[in-house]
Amino acid sequence: MENIWLKAAAMKDKMIATRRDLHKHPESAWIEFRTASIVAERLTKLGYEVLCGADVIDEATMMGVPTTEVLMQAQQRALSEGADPAWVDKMNGGKTGVVGIMHFAKPGKVVALRFDMDSNEVAETTEAEHQPCKEGFRSLHDGLMHACGHDGHVTVGLAVAELIAAHQDEMSGTIKLIFQPGEEGVRGAKAMVATGVVDDVDYFLSGHIGFNANRDGMFACMTGGFLATTKLDAYFTGQSSHAGAAPQEGRNALLAAAAASIALHSISRHGKGASRINVGVLEAGTGRNILPDRAVVKLETRGADTEINEFMMSEAKRMIKATADLYNVEVKMEEVGGAPSCALDEVMGQEIFELVKSSKQFSEVVPQVHLGASEDCSYFMQRVQEKGGQAVYMMYGSALKAGHHNSSFDFNEDCLPKSAAMLTILAKHFGEK
Amino acid sequence: MENIWLKAAAMKDKMIATRRDLHKHPESAWIEFRTASIVAERLTKLGYEVLCGADVIDEATMMGVPTTEVLMQAQQRALSEGADPAWVDKMNGGKTGVVGIMHFAKPGKVVALRFDMDSNEVAETTEAEHQPCKEGFRSLHDGLMHACGHDGHVTVGLAVAELIAAHQDEMSGTIKLIFQPGEEGVRGAKAMVATGVVDDVDYFLSGHIGFNANRDGMFACMTGGFLATTKLDAYFTGQSSHAGAAPQEGRNALLAAAAASIALHSISRHGKGASRINVGVLEAGTGRNILPDRAVVKLETRGADTEINEFMMSEAKRMIKATADLYNVEVKMEEVGGAPSCALDEVMGQEIFELVKSSKQFSEVVPQVHLGASEDCSYFMQRVQEKGGQAVYMMYGSALKAGHHNSSFDFNEDCLPKSAAMLTILAKHFGEK
Amino acid sequence: MENIWLKAAAMKDKMIATRRDLHKHPESAWIEFRTASIVAERLTKLGYEVLCGADVIDEATMMGVPTTEVLMQAQQRALSEGADPAWVDKMNGGKTGVVGIMHFAKPGKVVALRFDMDSNEVAETTEAEHQPCKEGFRSLHDGLMHACGHDGHVTVGLAVAELIAAHQDEMSGTIKLIFQPGEEGVRGAKAMVATGVVDDVDYFLSGHIGFNANRDGMFACMTGGFLATTKLDAYFTGQSSHAGAAPQEGRNALLAAAAASIALHSISRHGKGASRINVGVLEAGTGRNILPDRAVVKLETRGADTEINEFMMSEAKRMIKATADLYNVEVKMEEVGGAPSCALDEVMGQEIFELVKSSKQFSEVVPQVHLGASEDCSYFMQRVQEKGGQAVYMMYGSALKAGHHNSSFDFNEDCLPKSAAMLTILAKHFGEK
Amino acid sequence: MENIWLKAAAMKDKMIATRRDLHKHPESAWIEFRTASIVAERLTKLGYEVLCGADVIDEATMMGVPTTEVLMQAQQRALSEGADPAWVDKMNGGKTGVVGIMHFAKPGKVVALRFDMDSNEVAETTEAEHQPCKEGFRSLHDGLMHACGHDGHVTVGLAVAELIAAHQDEMSGTIKLIFQPGEEGVRGAKAMVATGVVDDVDYFLSGHIGFNANRDGMFACMTGGFLATTKLDAYFTGQSSHAGAAPQEGRNALLAAAAASIALHSISRHGKGASRINVGVLEAGTGRNILPDRAVVKLETRGADTEINEFMMSEAKRMIKATADLYNVEVKMEEVGGAPSCALDEVMGQEIFELVKSSKQFSEVVPQVHLGASEDCSYFMQRVQEKGGQAVYMMYGSALKAGHHNSSFDFNEDCLPKSAAMLTILAKHFGEK
Repeated sequence: MENIWLKAAAMKDKMIATRRDLHKHPESAWIEFRTASIVAERLTKLGYEVLCGADVIDEATMMGVPTTEVLMQAQQRALSEGADPAWVDKMNGGKTGVVGIMHFAKPGKVVALRFDMDSNEVAETTEAEHQPCKEGFRSLHDGLMHACGHDGHVTVGLAVAELIAAHQDEMSGTIKLIFQPGEEGVRGAKAMVATGVVDDVDYFLSGHIGFNANRDGMFACMTGGFLATTKLDAYFTGQSSHAGAAPQEGRNALLAAAAASIALHSISRHGKGASRINVGVLEAGTGRNILPDRAVVKLETRGADTEINEFMMSEAKRMIKATADLYNVEVKMEEVGGAPSCALDEVMGQEIFELVKSSKQFSEVVPQVHLGASEDCSYFMQRVQEKGGQAVYMMYGSALKAGHHNSSFDFNEDCLPKSAAMLTILAKHFGEK
Repeated sequence: MENIWLKAAAMKDKMIATRRDLHKHPESAWIEFRTASIVAERLTKLGYEVLCGADVIDEATMMGVPTTEVLMQAQQRALSEGADPAWVDKMNGGKTGVVGIMHFAKPGKVVALRFDMDSNEVAETTEAEHQPCKEGFRSLHDGLMHACGHDGHVTVGLAVAELIAAHQDEMSGTIKLIFQPGEEGVRGAKAMVATGVVDDVDYFLSGHIGFNANRDGMFACMTGGFLATTKLDAYFTGQSSHAGAAPQEGRNALLAAAAASIALHSISRHGKGASRINVGVLEAGTGRNILPDRAVVKLETRGADTEINEFMMSEAKRMIKATADLYNVEVKMEEVGGAPSCALDEVMGQEIFELVKSSKQFSEVVPQVHLGASEDCSYFMQRVQEKGGQAVYMMYGSALKAGHHNSSFDFNEDCLPKSAAMLTILAKHFGEK
Repeated sequence: MENIWLKAAAMKDKMIATRRDLHKHPESAWIEFRTASIVAERLTKLGYEVLCGADVIDEATMMGVPTTEVLMQAQQRALSEGADPAWVDKMNGGKTGVVGIMHFAKPGKVVALRFDMDSNEVAETTEAEHQPCKEGFRSLHDGLMHACGHDGHVTVGLAVAELIAAHQDEMSGTIKLIFQPGEEGVRGAKAMVATGVVDDVDYFLSGHIGFNANRDGMFACMTGGFLATTKLDAYFTGQSSHAGAAPQEGRNALLAAAAASIALHSISRHGKGASRINVGVLEAGTGRNILPDRAVVKLETRGADTEINEFMMSEAKRMIKATADLYNVEVKMEEVGGAPSCALDEVMGQEIFELVKSSKQFSEVVPQVHLGASEDCSYFMQRVQEKGGQAVYMMYGSALKAGHHNSSFDFNEDCLPKSAAMLTILAKHFGEK
Repeated sequence: MENIWLKAAAMKDKMIATRRDLHKHPESAWIEFRTASIVAERLTKLGYEVLCGADVIDEATMMGVPTTEVLMQAQQRALSEGADPAWVDKMNGGKTGVVGIMHFAKPGKVVALRFDMDSNEVAETTEAEHQPCKEGFRSLHDGLMHACGHDGHVTVGLAVAELIAAHQDEMSGTIKLIFQPGEEGVRGAKAMVATGVVDDVDYFLSGHIGFNANRDGMFACMTGGFLATTKLDAYFTGQSSHAGAAPQEGRNALLAAAAASIALHSISRHGKGASRINVGVLEAGTGRNILPDRAVVKLETRGADTEINEFMMSEAKRMIKATADLYNVEVKMEEVGGAPSCALDEVMGQEIFELVKSSKQFSEVVPQVHLGASEDCSYFMQRVQEKGGQAVYMMYGSALKAGHHNSSFDFNEDCLPKSAAMLTILAKHFGEK
C-alpha cells in the first residue's frame, strides 16, 4: 500500500468527473435517489455487500421527510436522469441511505467511514466566474445546489471504496462505508443509527471538506464543539372570523404564533453552558380583514451539550402549547431534525494525528478544531461510543470560494484524491488493531 | 302626606348631623360595623323589623372580604367609637348588611328602597377650604373617606325610615329599607340578593347623589348603561433562583404576570357592544438579582351587557391560566367583585318622572341618564325583574366640589331632605298600586 | 317615463349578457382596464361626455396600487381580451376610473350615481351547481372573481346610462355616472374625490346588491353604520446573522413584527364608540437557522367614526415604530386603503323611501339598514355633504347563494333591471329639485 | 516578623469583639457612618494618614445612593450609637469611604489592601441557635444584617492595620488600606476609583470570607470568573384615566413595564460567552379601575466580560426606551450599580500561592477558584492593571452556617486572625519587590 498516494492521484480525473456529475444533479434530504443509486451500483460492482432502503433507514425515526408528492416527483426525476429503477425502488419513501460492507480475510476490527450525500436548498449563482458555470456543471435542479461539499464527500467515499477493494488482501477486519441522506437540517443520521448500522463498529471516522477555514492543504484530526440541536415546526390552527363584524368569534392563530415567538426568545439562559433559540420563520394569516386562523412557526434550539438542548426544547414545547392555550387555538408540533452533542476520542485522534503528520502530504496538520455548530454525525459517534468503540470527526482543508451554504460556494478539487488516500490508510490502520 | 316636604325640610339639621357623623367615621367594604349598628338601632327604634348578619348576607357569595385581622380591628374600632356590641356581634365576619321591614295595615305592594353604606379607600384632603375640614367632620380614619356620597345615602335612608314610620297609617303594602355594605368594588349586593331579600319585591328603587353632573337641584328618574363587570385577582407562584448562577432553575412569576397583562389587553373587541379590560395593579419580585417567584395582578373586565362581560372574563381566565403555564408557574384566581348589567323599567320610570315633575321641588327633571359605569345595585334590580317586579335607579343632583372618589369630593347637603321626601312619596305611590 | 319599468324589463337579457361577460373577465383593484374600457366606450356611444385616467384619478392619493409589473400584465390581458387600446392607454398606471356626464336642457340639480367595478382576489368555485359554472361564465382569470356583485353594479350603471340617454329630454339638470375602481380594500374612492369629481354634486346616490340579507326583492333606502377604516402595511428590515454562531450580530425583524402584532391588539378600547384592530397577515424570516431580517405585517383599524379610527391608527403607527426600535430594526409603513365614516342624509332618504314605496315594484321597502362594515363610498358622500349636497347609500335586495367574498357567491339577476329603473327614476327626481 | 502568626493569634479576642460590635450595628450601602468613623478613628490612632469623604469618594460616580432622608436618619443613628461627629461630618452625603496610608522608611512598592464595609438589607434570623442570638450580638438595626461577612472583612482590615503599624520599621514602600462602602449592589468601588485612590498602586489585594465553599481553613490564592454587571432602575410615567369611562385618555405605564420585562428577557444570547438578564422587580399601578400611570422595573445584566455586559445593557436601554414609546409613556433610567469583569494576574497569584503554602497555616491551599458572580472590586483591579500594576482577589475559607445573604449566615471567627496575619505577610512581601 505504499503507492496508495500515487494511485489516488491517478484517480483524480475520474474523481473530478464523478464530483461534477453529482454537482450537476443535486438532491436534497431524503430525495437522493439518483445519488444513492449511483453509490449502490458502484459499491456492488466493486464487490461490496450493499444494503439500502429499509435495511439501513428506520422509517419511524426519519425526521423532516418531504411530502409524498415531492418524493414521487424526485423519484421520477432520478429515473429520467438515468437512475437504476431497481435501486430507486428499494429506496421508496425516501429511504436513500446506502451501506457497503466488505469483510477481509485477515482478522481485525470493524471500521466505519461515513459520507453525507444531500445537497442544500439553495439556488446556485449564475455568475460567469463561478467554476461550475465556467466548466458547465452548474446545478440542473432549480433551487438545489451542492453548497456544502457533500458532492465531494460522496466522491471521496467512492474513491475510498475503490482503493480498499483494490487492496482488500492487505486489509484486516471489516470495512463499512456508510452513505447518509439528509445531513442538512440534521435529519438523516438518527434513522440510520436506529437500524443498528454502527452497533458493531470499533472505529468510526467521518469528516468535512473545508469546513472551518480556507486553509488549502490543511488536515484537522479531531473536531470538537458539536452543539446539540433540535429543529421544530409548530402549526397553530384557530378559527377565522370577520375582523370588523365579529372579532369575538375568532380564535387568533397569528397572535398565538407571535406570543410563542417572543416567549421562546425569553427562555432562560442556562448556568451550565451556551444555549441558543431561534424562531427563523413565522407565517400567519391570509387576509387583512380576516381574523387569522392559521400560523406556522419554525424554530431551532441548541445547547453546548445534550442536557442543555433538552432543557431548551422542553421549555420551548411547553411554551408553544401554552401560547396556543393563550389564544384558544390548537397546535401540532413536529420535530423535523436534531442532533446530540458528542465527546471526542482523544486517543484515536492522537493516532490519526501521527499518521497524517507522517504522511507528509498536508501543508498543515492540526490536532483539533472547534465546530461551534451542529452535525448529525454525532448520532453515529455517540452510538459507537456507547457500544465501546471510538469515533472521530476530521476536517479536510480546501480553499473555498465562498462560505458553506452560499450560492457561490466552491472548493478546490485537489483535496479529493488526498482525502481518499488518507482515509484508506486510516481505515487500514484501525482495522489492524 | 302633603306636608311631607315641610317635614323633611324640618329634619334638615338632624340629617346634616347624621351625615357628618358618618363622614367622620368612614368604614369601607364589609367593615361598616359602626354605620350598620347605627342603622339597625334607629330602624329598631322606629318600629321596623330589623334583619342583619347572616339573615341578609350569604357568606358563600361575599366577594372581596378583608382578612380576619382587618375585620377584627375594624370591629374593635367600631366598638371604641360607640357601636352597640349586640349588633356588631350579629355582623361577625363582615356581614354588615341591614334590612328594615314594615308591613302596613292597608294592603298593597312590596316596595324596596336600597342605600349603600361603605366608604372609599381614599385619604381625605387636608386642605383648609374643604368643607369637612372647615366644619370639623373630616375623616378620623386614615386612608378611608366617604368620597362617593354613601354617607348621604345612609342619611337619606334613615330620614325616609323616619318619615314613613311617621306616616305608616297612610302607607299601603310593605316597605323594605335595604342598607347594603360593599358597593365600592361591587362586592356586597350579590351576597344580599342570595339571601332572597328582594325575592318578594314588586317595586325597587335606588339611586345616587350627584352622580352624573354637578347639576344642583336636578333629579334624574332613570339611569341606564350599567356596565356588567367582574373584578379578579391572580396570584402567580413560581420558583426563585439566583439570576446569575442558575437562572434555568427558576420559574419566573414576574414574566408570567407581565405576559398575562399584555395578553389580557389583547382580548378581542366584541362585535355586539362595548367591552373593557384593565390590569390596574401588577406587583412582582423581591430583589434585582433573584429570579422572581411571586407576582400578583389585579384586573377588571366590563361589558355593555352581562354576556359581553362574561366573554371578557372567560377569555381573561383562560389567558391567565395559559400565561402561568407559559412560564411554568402556578396561579390562583379570586373573583373579588362583580355586577351584572340590568334593564330599565321604562313604565315605572315614566311614573316616577310624572311624580317628580308634579312635585315642583326640583330645578330640573330628567327622564333618563346614562351611567357608563358599574354599580352592583344591578344585582338587586335583575333579581326583582326576574321575579316579575320592576326596578329603577335614580340620580339626585347636587353641586359637587370634586369628582367622585376624589380626595376633595363633597356635595351640597341641601339635596338630603329633598331626596328623602321624594323617596317617601314614591314609596307610598308604588305601595298603593 | 311611466313605462321606464317596462323598458328596463325589456333590457333584461342584454343586462344579463353584460353582467356575465364582466363576471367572466374579473379585474381587481386598479387593473380594471377591460371593464373600464367597455364602460367608457358605451357611455361615449350613448352621448355622454366621458372622462377617465388622470382626469378622474389623482395619482398621489391612489392607495394600494399593484406593482408596475402587475399593471403591465393586466393591461396586456385586457388588450388580448378585446379592450380598446385608446382607452387602455388613457388609464395608464392603473387610473381606471370613468365618469360619464350629460347636461340636460331643463335646468336642475347635479345628480351623481356611483358604481364600483373591481373584482375580488378570490378563486371562483368549480362546483357544478354554481350558476356561472353551469351557464359557462365562470371567471377566466385565475384567483380573481366577482364575489361581491360589482359586475352587477357596472351592469346596472350602464343600463341606467342607457335609460337616461333615451329619456334625456325629460331629465333636468346634470347627471354624473361615476364608475370607481378599487372599492375592495377601500382603495379607489379617495383618488377620485381628490380630482373634484363630486365637488359640484347636489345629490349623490350609490348602493350595493344584496348586501345585508338574502331578501329577494327588498329595497333599503338608507344605509348607516359605515365604519371608518385604514389599511396599513408595515415592512420591517433588520440584519440576519447565524443563529448558532453569532446571534448578537443580528437585528430581529420577526420579533419586531411579533411584538407589534401583540401590542397592536392591546391598543386601548375607546370610550366613545366601537373600535377594531386586526393584524391579518404576518410573514417573517427565511430559514430556521437564520436570524430573520425581514418581516411584513398587514393590518387594518376601524372606528365607529373617523375620530375613533384616527385614534386607532395613530396608536398603531406609534406602536409599529416603537417595536421596530425595540428590536433595532427599520420599518416602512404604507397606507394601502382607507375610508372615513359618514353621516346619513335622512331628508333625502325619506324622499327615496316614498318614491320606492310608491313604485310598488319591491316586495319589501326598508327605510334604513345598518352596514357595520367599511365602504369607501363614504369618501364621496362626505365630500358631497361638505360641499352642501346630500348623499345616500342604498341596498338592492337579492337572493344570494353564498355570502359576499365567498367563492360560491352569486345573486339573482332579476334585481338588475329593477335597480336600473329605480335609479333612473331617482336620478330624474333629484335632478328636478 | 516571624512571630506575626503569634501576634495575630493573641489579637483574636479583640478581633472578635470588634467583629461582634460591627455585626450588632450593621449599615448598608452609603450609610456606613458609624463603621467608617470607627475605621477612620483607629487608623488615625495607629499613625496612618487618613482620607475620607470627598477625598476618596467622587460624588458624580456614586451609584444607588439612598435618599437624603435615609442618609440623614442613618447619620443620626450613627451619632446616637457613638460615632464621632467630626468624622460623620466629613462623610456627608454618604461619602463613607476611608483610606489609611503609611509610607515606610525603606523604599519599595505601593501595596493596597481593600476591605468592604457595608451590610446587607436582610432581616437577621431570631432563631435561638443562631450564634449572634445566642451570644447577644444580633443586629440592632431592623432589616439590616451583616450576612456577607463584611463585618469580618473590616475586622481583618483593622487588625492588619495594627500589625503593620507595629512592624512599620520592617516594611518597605507604602501601604494603602482601602475601606470601601457599598459593595452590595456593586455600588461603591467606582466612586473610589474615580478619585484616583489606586492610580499609584503596584500590588492590589482583596478577598472574601468563605465565599465559595464551607471549607474551614482553606485559602484560595486567586479568584477568576468575575462577571461584569450593571444594575438599572427604570421608572415609567404615563397618564391615568378611568378604565371604564375613558381608557383611550390614559397612557399605560404598567403595560410599558410589562412589555419591557418580556422584551428584556428576549435579548439575544451572545456568541462569545455567557450573558444574563434579570428583571427582579416590577411594581405598577394603584387601583384596579384606574389605568396605571406609574411603574418601576428593577433589573440587572451580566456578561462573561465587560464587552458582553455592555452589549446586554445597550440592548436593555434601547428596549426600555422603545417600550416606553410603545405605550406613549415617559421613562427615566438610573444605573444604580455596576462592575466590570477583570483579568487575573497569574504571576502575582503564583507568588501568593507559594507564600501561603509555605506558611503551613492553612489546611488547604487552592491556586484558583471561580466566582461566577459579580464583585465591584473589579473596578479597583482593572484600574490597577491599566496603570501597570497587578491585582489579585483571594478567598479565606471558613465554615459557614448558611449561604451568603441568608438570614442565618454566620462564619467561623477562627479565620479572622489567620487572614490578618497572612495579609500582613503578603503586604510586606509585595512592598519589598
